[in-house]
Amino acid sequence: MTAFRKPLIALAIGDPAGISPELTARVVALPEIREAATVAVIGDRRVFEQGARVAGLSVEPEVFVDLANLDPTSIARGVASREGGASALANYRRALAMVSAGEAHAVCFTPFNKQAMRLAHAGYDDEIRFTAQEIGFTGTATEFNILEGLWNARVTSHIPLKEVSAALDPEAILSALELTATALEAAGFRPPRIGVAALNPHAGDGGNFGREEIDIIAPAVERARAMGLPAEGPFPADTVFVRAKSGQFDAVLTMYHDQGQIAMKLLGFDRGVTLLGGFPFPICTPAHGTAYDIAGRGLANVGAARAALLLAARMAAGAVTS
Amino acid sequence: MTAFRKPLIALAIGDPAGISPELTARVVALPEIREAATVAVIGDRRVFEQGARVAGLSVEPEVFVDLANLDPTSIARGVASREGGASALANYRRALAMVSAGEAHAVCFTPFNKQAMRLAHAGYDDEIRFTAQEIGFTGTATEFNILEGLWNARVTSHIPLKEVSAALDPEAILSALELTATALEAAGFRPPRIGVAALNPHAGDGGNFGREEIDIIAPAVERARAMGLPAEGPFPADTVFVRAKSGQFDAVLTMYHDQGQIAMKLLGFDRGVTLLGGFPFPICTPAHGTAYDIAGRGLANVGAARAALLLAARMAAGAVTS
Repeated sequence: MTAFRKPLIALAIGDPAGISPELTARVVALPEIREAATVAVIGDRRVFEQGARVAGLSVEPEVFVDLANLDPTSIARGVASREGGASALANYRRALAMVSAGEAHAVCFTPFNKQAMRLAHAGYDDEIRFTAQEIGFTGTATEFNILEGLWNARVTSHIPLKEVSAALDPEAILSALELTATALEAAGFRPPRIGVAALNPHAGDGGNFGREEIDIIAPAVERARAMGLPAEGPFPADTVFVRAKSGQFDAVLTMYHDQGQIAMKLLGFDRGVTLLGGFPFPICTPAHGTAYDIAGRGLANVGAARAALLLAARMAAGAVTS
Repeated sequence: MTAFRKPLIALAIGDPAGISPELTARVVALPEIREAATVAVIGDRRVFEQGARVAGLSVEPEVFVDLANLDPTSIARGVASREGGASALANYRRALAMVSAGEAHAVCFTPFNKQAMRLAHAGYDDEIRFTAQEIGFTGTATEFNILEGLWNARVTSHIPLKEVSAALDPEAILSALELTATALEAAGFRPPRIGVAALNPHAGDGGNFGREEIDIIAPAVERARAMGLPAEGPFPADTVFVRAKSGQFDAVLTMYHDQGQIAMKLLGFDRGVTLLGGFPFPICTPAHGTAYDIAGRGLANVGAARAALLLAARMAAGAVTS
């Protein structure tokens, strides 16, 4: 074993009305997390301690940044509130600030509730835009969905399906391939293997069912390969995930939102991890939501939060040792 | 047990260069198939017998329509040929003619090879168009993909993705829902439960990511329900198959080709069945192809062919008893 300094992960407690407090307590109690990283929990200590009680644990984080910003008795379980959203946002802001100031190497957060976030912050759109504004990042960031070694990134996301074709161009695809390859390499895939999905049925069937494969996607893949990026395709969307599932690819780059989400959710993405990639440091969170229906009952499964912390630790380790 | 007359299924031997001959022999040898239906095999007896030898079986179909149209020694295994395609087409034509003449209740075929079909028949497009021409059918027919009790039908199919939105209208969706409900009922789902997929990410998010859900799909579902058709939705495409997999729906109606195919192939559709629905009688075939790579080696799995015959028998039984 080589001795190395562990990365420090800033872990923001998410929405207090759901399972986030108990998940936070559960995940910092795991021996494999303590071995992989030093975790700094950010939030109100009373919220954390209530979470630990729900989880049936007596646990002390290695570092606690107590913002003392929320009395948990003021929050109704299972209800989205402005106060709950405001506390999650404050915790997340502090986590980002810690990494920006060089006090931590990566950010994780337990689930946010979008409705509560919007109640607390009128312009709240999604984590990517908020993070970019917060840290003054003007580059390209994107969301990766990760399930047990299978990554999915997409070229377009929250736009109408009929606008997808017009939003595709070789530069957008190339940029997504670069982001994907960089993130995969940071996570230890060397070299990563990326399968690129086609847009049309049967990958356009040689132009019979659409020409984007010929005119846009294949040229982008060729340019990527010429740059040394390990991309293959375009493959028909209904077989590229079957290939990836069988181990042929580490990541699939999809052209639109549902193309990847249909596959990832069927494969069990609720057990997976969302990585906000492209930022100067990794930001990871469990893919599932706040699970208001089971909050406070000690039923929350820590698997996805555990995977999120481990991924952040793995990606941050490079920053620590380099 | 009620005594009943078994349906008669006309089973056309598919492409002779792949696994179709051995599959044909295997499936007619199964006791559960013999119990469910009388199967009339249509093709060249020498091809069938070679298939039985490959399968290691000594089997005599209850009925054999020997077209004596292909010497199997003239065909190279694993190679698409005009002669092979012509024999498969001739077998299929005879099967259709038998049902049209009232001599059989349903049609099945072991896999065709599209390349061979096109070599044999220049205008060959797909089974649906060929069948409609052959039997003079001018109504609406559609393809159902079926895997272990989960059905998928689609409103649009082999068109460019960017044309999908313009091809959707309430009438097309309503017509697909009617076909789906009728086919499910014929297969014994009473009442069937049909989930309808949305078109846009997050089902359009209330109009933020597209309006087809509001303007086209929801009105079609409402009209269907007013007519007594058991449709629900539209649901986000990335969750409707998760619901269906958990048993909430018998069928999912998707708006475009890959929306359903991504899900069905990941779930293992190669083990499934393709039903050509909407015709006056059921036409079923295994979903997998001719598997040229394993032809003649006795490795072909009969599961999908078995499921195709059993579905045809179940759907035809209604025609026999009524």
